[in-house]
Amino acid sequence: MEYCAEITVQLKKGMLDPEGTTIRRALEHLGYQTSEVKSAKKYIITLSSDSIENARKTVDEMCQRMIANPVIHDYTISMREI
Amino acid sequence: MEYCAEITVQLKKGMLDPEGTTIRRALEHLGYQTSEVKSAKKYIITLSSDSIENARKTVDEMCQRMIANPVIHDYTISMREI
Repeated sequence: MEYCAEITVQLKKGMLDPEGTTIRRALEHLGYQTSEVKSAKKYIITLSSDSIENARKTVDEMCQRMIANPVIHDYTISMREI
Repeated sequence: MEYCAEITVQLKKGMLDPEGTTIRRALEHLGYQTSEVKSAKKYIITLSSDSIENARKTVDEMCQRMIANPVIHDYTISMREI
């Protein structure tokens, strides 16, 4: 079966987010007031696996070993069959 | 009211995605086979507005004027009240 994993990698609470701060300031210059702007990365991975549980386990391993940095990032995985 | 907008900015279909390609290759080196890896950016914007419709309109304007590049990007906005 083919599965599609949507991984969102976000900075942990309390980490500085210079990209978000810069965008917030730039939006302000354009006249848009915001309370907060946070930036994150998203990865959409398509992979084959025998079950959705195994696919999720594999993607979780990928995140821990390479995609996210556990010191500074939190990540969420959303899986669906395609 | 305060609203939270989740904006996902992705490369249009057919655009080269070197980040996705690099991650796919790196995952392969670690022994993970994938069919496709796509990268995207996500922005979480909190803002005040009198209605969810107006909040969405404002965020859509932000995307068109600054956050996304309409030549190469597609974007989706998901709004919720907080």
